[in-house]
Amino acid sequence: MQDNVRKPLDRLSEALTDEMAAVNVLIRDRMASRHAPRIPEVTAHLIEAGGKRLRPMLTLAAAKLLGYPGPWHIHLAATVEFIHTATLLHDDVVDESRQRRGRPTANLLWDNKSSVLVGDYLFARSFQLMVEPGNLRTLEILANASATIAEGEVLQLTAAQDLATDENVYLQVVRGKTAALFSAATEVGGVIAGAPDDQVQALFDYGDALGISFQIVDDLLDYGGATETIGKNTGDDFRERKLTLPVIKAIAQATPDERAFWARTIETGDQREGDLDEALALMARHGAMAAARRDALDHAARAKAALQVLPPHPIRDMLSDLADFVVSRVA
Amino acid sequence: MQDNVRKPLDRLSEALTDEMAAVNVLIRDRMASRHAPRIPEVTAHLIEAGGKRLRPMLTLAAAKLLGYPGPWHIHLAATVEFIHTATLLHDDVVDESRQRRGRPTANLLWDNKSSVLVGDYLFARSFQLMVEPGNLRTLEILANASATIAEGEVLQLTAAQDLATDENVYLQVVRGKTAALFSAATEVGGVIAGAPDDQVQALFDYGDALGISFQIVDDLLDYGGATETIGKNTGDDFRERKLTLPVIKAIAQATPDERAFWARTIETGDQREGDLDEALALMARHGAMAAARRDALDHAARAKAALQVLPPHPIRDMLSDLADFVVSRVA
Repeated sequence: MQDNVRKPLDRLSEALTDEMAAVNVLIRDRMASRHAPRIPEVTAHLIEAGGKRLRPMLTLAAAKLLGYPGPWHIHLAATVEFIHTATLLHDDVVDESRQRRGRPTANLLWDNKSSVLVGDYLFARSFQLMVEPGNLRTLEILANASATIAEGEVLQLTAAQDLATDENVYLQVVRGKTAALFSAATEVGGVIAGAPDDQVQALFDYGDALGISFQIVDDLLDYGGATETIGKNTGDDFRERKLTLPVIKAIAQATPDERAFWARTIETGDQREGDLDEALALMARHGAMAAARRDALDHAARAKAALQVLPPHPIRDMLSDLADFVVSRVA
Repeated sequence: MQDNVRKPLDRLSEALTDEMAAVNVLIRDRMASRHAPRIPEVTAHLIEAGGKRLRPMLTLAAAKLLGYPGPWHIHLAATVEFIHTATLLHDDVVDESRQRRGRPTANLLWDNKSSVLVGDYLFARSFQLMVEPGNLRTLEILANASATIAEGEVLQLTAAQDLATDENVYLQVVRGKTAALFSAATEVGGVIAGAPDDQVQALFDYGDALGISFQIVDDLLDYGGATETIGKNTGDDFRERKLTLPVIKAIAQATPDERAFWARTIETGDQREGDLDEALALMARHGAMAAARRDALDHAARAKAALQVLPPHPIRDMLSDLADFVVSRVA
């Protein structure tokens, strides 16, 4: 099973080996700094931590399936990864995180100051990178995505513990913190390849739907996945009082007593032993996990449908399988 | 005296009234956010706090003295102010500041999270703004300046309390945290006006020299100005253990005993009653304040000399007077 579900990402990675190698060289090169020694210390830590590099791979995949010969998709892919990395550094400061990808976070190893300022540096480097292809449309897309990301993060600050947060607000937050960079990644791949408008739009739609699906699945996994059994990291979001989709759905149908439970545990943050079990029971009573899973499947289906506008290509099939893979984690 | 020394900024402000009004409208418009209510709260606070808007004025001045009819200098000027404001928000988090321009800082009124994320938002908005003129050279200049600023801030983190910091490192930090945005502000004004290379270079040199002079004067004022008398905020940098130019100069000539004093007060941070007086006495003994003032005057002279390449214009004279004004604060 595990091997089977990992296939689409592995196959994409294989189909884009040379391009990803070039992206990694560019990332290492641009994460350096001649002047400030703290920068290479922090960025080396980030590079070693690795990660799947899913977002730059989306840019490369979009460009390649449309026959783009290069070279600027490499810069755009690296730009996307820089924006992502800068966001992670600042997220860890905002969330006071101590671990990321199984390693201590930069704010823990150094300090919040270094994370804020090195994040700013990577953000500025991302803008230098995106200017280099000399393409105003990709610049506009990536600058807009950066603003949408920051807006989504700020919205999350105020919406996260407010029971009035509904599915519309949730979708805005998710578009900001996750989907905006996915859709920008695929869209710029199409634009740099000189694709016609309908194909560029299809790539945007694919990235948008994939990103939303990806985030809903993440929310579900935090409560043990659609099976509602308790896994290793189950309940982190609950303990951090985050209003994620399954909780929002359960609150929408809550009785007055249930509402009082959510107000106490999420808004006030007064959590007691057994509260996580109670939260899971309330979500199960209203079918909230199953409904969130259906939403994730709908977005995955929307992602796959968008691909139909694009020319047939092995990479198109991999992108389609990737959408299935994302939701297969909560099958 | 006070009225006399304020003249150049007032005269610039008057000569650029209409343009500055347009910049302010654009700033208010772009600091809004449809989605995240925390953003307009924080940015309204920043806008009300005002500030001299010196940096956008430099862009407008450069463009106008070269006869540029508009409209894109407005966007570039607003971009420069957005970068500056984003930097201030993050600086206040890094320095744990509680006051700026006589008002409580955003990190105090809201929290560090809001300051980090709203700063990111303003930074992203600055990139959207700078893309709009569709001029790749101004984009490159502003993206490079952003990277230099962040690099300077990170360098300051590690250099600030290290007695090995020499004047070269100091200059790198100052170019990053102050002069890079001054020189980018003047340079993009020239580029958007279509000025020939030597004039663009002259504008860069003016901004660079003015920015460095400005920062050295700031350092001097923190120790009471060249007179070495104690003023209202005297000693903030000393208490915050910042290695500024006068201190660096005193350390370069320190006896072993004096070096031990600086190691204790700046590196270790073990400060006692009377230490500030002792620091001032050591700087006086080695003529460190006078030498730093000479450096500030040299940079101001360099700024004025650079202007000679530009065509005669009332605004050119105001920029020249502005360089004199900056150093007149430590006359």
